[in-house]
Amino acid sequence: MPGAKKVGGYKNRILRVNLTDRKFSEDTLSNEFIHDYIGGRGFGAKLLYDELKPGIDPLGEENELISLVGPMTGTNSQSFHRWKVTFKSPLTSGYFTSSAGGFFGAEQKAAGFDVIIINGAADKPVYLWIHDGKYELRDATYLWGLDCDDTHTLIREELNDPRIRIACIGAAGENGVKYAGVFTDRRAAGRGGGGAVMGAKKLKAIAIRGSGKVAIAEPEAFRQAAREQVQILKEHEGMKGFSETGTQLAEFTNLLGMYPTRNFQEGVLPDWEKIERSVYTNLRERKTACYRCMLHCGSITKMNTGRYSGAWTEGPEYETIWAFTGPEGKADVGLTIAADKLCDDLGLDTISAGNTIGFAYELYDRGIITKKDTGGLELTYGNSEPVLEMLRQIAYRKGFGDLLAEGTLEAARRIGKGAEQYAIQVKGLELPAYDPRGAKAHGLNLLTSNLGADHNFGYAGQELFGIPIPREVDRFAVESKGELAKYNQDLTAMTNTGIYCNLPLSMATLSPELYAKLLSAATGVKDFADPDYLWRVGERITNLERMFNIREGFGRKDDIFPKRLTDEPMPAGPSAGQVFEIEPLLKSYYKARGWDAKTGIPTKAKLDELGLGFAIK
Amino acid sequence: MPGAKKVGGYKNRILRVNLTDRKFSEDTLSNEFIHDYIGGRGFGAKLLYDELKPGIDPLGEENELISLVGPMTGTNSQSFHRWKVTFKSPLTSGYFTSSAGGFFGAEQKAAGFDVIIINGAADKPVYLWIHDGKYELRDATYLWGLDCDDTHTLIREELNDPRIRIACIGAAGENGVKYAGVFTDRRAAGRGGGGAVMGAKKLKAIAIRGSGKVAIAEPEAFRQAAREQVQILKEHEGMKGFSETGTQLAEFTNLLGMYPTRNFQEGVLPDWEKIERSVYTNLRERKTACYRCMLHCGSITKMNTGRYSGAWTEGPEYETIWAFTGPEGKADVGLTIAADKLCDDLGLDTISAGNTIGFAYELYDRGIITKKDTGGLELTYGNSEPVLEMLRQIAYRKGFGDLLAEGTLEAARRIGKGAEQYAIQVKGLELPAYDPRGAKAHGLNLLTSNLGADHNFGYAGQELFGIPIPREVDRFAVESKGELAKYNQDLTAMTNTGIYCNLPLSMATLSPELYAKLLSAATGVKDFADPDYLWRVGERITNLERMFNIREGFGRKDDIFPKRLTDEPMPAGPSAGQVFEIEPLLKSYYKARGWDAKTGIPTKAKLDELGLGFAIK
Repeated sequence: MPGAKKVGGYKNRILRVNLTDRKFSEDTLSNEFIHDYIGGRGFGAKLLYDELKPGIDPLGEENELISLVGPMTGTNSQSFHRWKVTFKSPLTSGYFTSSAGGFFGAEQKAAGFDVIIINGAADKPVYLWIHDGKYELRDATYLWGLDCDDTHTLIREELNDPRIRIACIGAAGENGVKYAGVFTDRRAAGRGGGGAVMGAKKLKAIAIRGSGKVAIAEPEAFRQAAREQVQILKEHEGMKGFSETGTQLAEFTNLLGMYPTRNFQEGVLPDWEKIERSVYTNLRERKTACYRCMLHCGSITKMNTGRYSGAWTEGPEYETIWAFTGPEGKADVGLTIAADKLCDDLGLDTISAGNTIGFAYELYDRGIITKKDTGGLELTYGNSEPVLEMLRQIAYRKGFGDLLAEGTLEAARRIGKGAEQYAIQVKGLELPAYDPRGAKAHGLNLLTSNLGADHNFGYAGQELFGIPIPREVDRFAVESKGELAKYNQDLTAMTNTGIYCNLPLSMATLSPELYAKLLSAATGVKDFADPDYLWRVGERITNLERMFNIREGFGRKDDIFPKRLTDEPMPAGPSAGQVFEIEPLLKSYYKARGWDAKTGIPTKAKLDELGLGFAIK
Repeated sequence: MPGAKKVGGYKNRILRVNLTDRKFSEDTLSNEFIHDYIGGRGFGAKLLYDELKPGIDPLGEENELISLVGPMTGTNSQSFHRWKVTFKSPLTSGYFTSSAGGFFGAEQKAAGFDVIIINGAADKPVYLWIHDGKYELRDATYLWGLDCDDTHTLIREELNDPRIRIACIGAAGENGVKYAGVFTDRRAAGRGGGGAVMGAKKLKAIAIRGSGKVAIAEPEAFRQAAREQVQILKEHEGMKGFSETGTQLAEFTNLLGMYPTRNFQEGVLPDWEKIERSVYTNLRERKTACYRCMLHCGSITKMNTGRYSGAWTEGPEYETIWAFTGPEGKADVGLTIAADKLCDDLGLDTISAGNTIGFAYELYDRGIITKKDTGGLELTYGNSEPVLEMLRQIAYRKGFGDLLAEGTLEAARRIGKGAEQYAIQVKGLELPAYDPRGAKAHGLNLLTSNLGADHNFGYAGQELFGIPIPREVDRFAVESKGELAKYNQDLTAMTNTGIYCNLPLSMATLSPELYAKLLSAATGVKDFADPDYLWRVGERITNLERMFNIREGFGRKDDIFPKRLTDEPMPAGPSAGQVFEIEPLLKSYYKARGWDAKTGIPTKAKLDELGLGFAIK
């Protein structure tokens, strides 16, 4: 193996892999870079900004896939298990970062690299094998076409080490489905098409194994901060709920009247009681967890009756429960379980897949497409039977699926006939399971996120869960929601340097003060002990990402919802009558951000203030 | 965990598990028992004989499943990786023992038990978890219905140890398919219905992990004998061939005119050149191997073109290649690969499955069954398309598959209309991929094996590969074939105490002299150093198994082939004109065995000579 090296305590090492000429290089991140961007998402944002020329093809050789962990990854602090891939998205043509739980991140850290940058493209399928500071590209011809689970199994067998962690793609990524994800042990960095980026690079998987220990600058201080963290999580009422039921929010959001139904035409699923909280809990066979996380919010779920008897999955999470019920207008637990597992096998993002299927259902309902277009599939509301077949056709780009594989926006453009208004997306990224009309700061986040409609970019737990931090809010109110959206987005960006899990974050379990204690103890960087500094880094990251997109031609014109959400009042239910008041909301957001109200571009003053002067044209 | 104990060097420990009352007990095998039966198959034969009352229901609580390893399992000797399950067969209602390669055996040994006896039946699905001398039954409700690969993955995740080895059943075993196998990492103890026995006991899996070292009585002598073994295997021309191509024998047996085609109506597949030796080698993506075996005869094979593009499997072995070509009268490599993997997923024995499907094809061809019986499937020769659907129907006992799940003999009895003559089986066990008319000692073995038509009970390498040990033979000749069949059977029984792999055994790589050196050094038992004694143990085992069957009502009447093989001359090809001359062949065999020529029962003198006086009624 080239580059063989013994590793022990280390940090801030970077590995570059060029797949075109099969070359590797190693580097150490500079102290300045670490100081300014901390880790994880911060590193990814700066590297992508620096290294990608504007206008490159997301599925071309010039795109990069950057695999990232943070300073706390692999330590005994809680819920810093997440791992990120950052890349230019084939779905949005903009900046993207997607994360997954599980164990891959801790393994990457233990293998000695905080950052892995992959560019170029191989001429035939390969996988990247990294082992304690050593690395090589291996033939993946035999893995091409295999589902994600089989890929995990066969790589572990080939390398004769069952403890290897793997991030891989399924058929969807190989076939360039624009919302193909990257999968590790059935957990997905699902959104934005990272799987398609890997597929275009003919990179089937990254396999990783490490035995290194994470270097901690101030062990005793770190231990104390980690203990404080455990105490908070232990005593937190909301966390007990999540531990018990996982992300089973369908009952909750239906009761808020913001469960997107029939492609966001309604906010309450008629038969939502069939998926009330206890339904999935009762089907739970056992709980699962990520590396060093006491929440254990995952589940192995199995259907034991009916048509889908025997179907099982890890999950389904709330978004997936929605993806295979709301869009089709019908609750079917067995189908949802089967569809979730199928998406894991094929390597599909369930949110975009479900939303895109819902888009097709509405077009069919309106007669914009017919059986002739769908290849005979009957997409009538209440008939969710075609869903599994549609998922297969999407992943293999067969028949009707080839069109749906493009995502709602591009598919709508190809279909024409006014279809675009039914593409419920922002910047090309399909909306998840929250109708913005029912929660305005949450909606603002979906509207302005640098990723498109991503709920994890700045989850408004204040509106949804009644979290009183920084203050109590009315979910329908408009005033000051711009500032609240900014708060949530910057807090998320800040803690995404860690990389802390967004689930406990949405319940306000990690204060900037505690995060500062953990970070400064872990790294020894003085400024990290100052919460104000961390807030600035959070804002720096969201602004830099915005500048990436501005450079790509994005602007205020892209901070837009389909008019259904802004012009059609929610017809019934607990959010009846609500629209998303886009003008005042966006105005308040731009103002809070210090961005130009007309163009949506960060002002020179703001960029200078954030140390982003280099991004000023 | 009950029974927790620290283990280190150990041997000859036995674990008993009663699933009905969930009780465990431990014991040590007596020196006398070890002396008389050595290990592996010997232990299983004696225990099953002693512990089962005659006439019990193989799918009832009283049946036992005995998991066995041998004195060399887990040592650094070569090809002693195999592991056995012994039980009363639901397919034959007689004695059965089935073995698989892989890593389960070495793990069982390292966990501290040479023998695990499982009896009773659980009231709901469980799996047995054994870890370094500790053991418990765990809930397997969530695993019920899962395929074999998923079962492996989820158990490893649940117990948080990816190095756990697992032997499990799929849907076929759960649903009581009479030829459901037991699967470990895609390797199968496939034959005889051990999977159905586990299913009836509601035992989804045995999971095992151990860190113990195998105790060796005379380490230096053992090392020397193991070195001698390596030298022999290294220099053996035939083994080089097996290493290169695995068990790709289809070309070879077609050239011998004994490739059973269209349910043994012919001996040459019309398009056999499509499966000549290089075809699968060219599709091989990488080689695989069992624990401490230098042959690496396994393969990961993948189809990259045509209808089954993307299908992959570990294998297919020769018997499986045959199972999905010969019976249907057509070579289809993609279908074979897909069918092999499907059998691994569903937990089906490929030989019985393929033979049974071939039986159905012939009945359909003759109009004994029609589309009405098959649920619309067109079983016309040359159309192998229905095969995958048939396998699914068999495993889930749906529609036509419910009948085929019984195996050819019972299915024929239920069908009536003379169907029984087309059930190509012995004692209920379907014939494998060798037409007995083309190799008479090999045929005699299939005819007289205590398992029914099992080719590994005494493989006649002399006839098939031209092995000159103990002498060169003409494969069509009748004379002295009884004695040759006995030689092969007793040698196999002897080395199955080890448990040596039958593949290198069929190439005469393990002489009784070398086996004696290994065995005596490993165990310190003096008599084991004497090859003549080992021959006696081999004969003891085959006779004791025979007495188990005699006690069940078996006899000469059951040493019978369907009349196609004895009365219809092979119509064409290199074995044209041959029949299996059953009368003289069986007579010569009984004579060589010292069994009563009329009844086929071992004489009192023979039993006394072998120390089996207890079996005389």
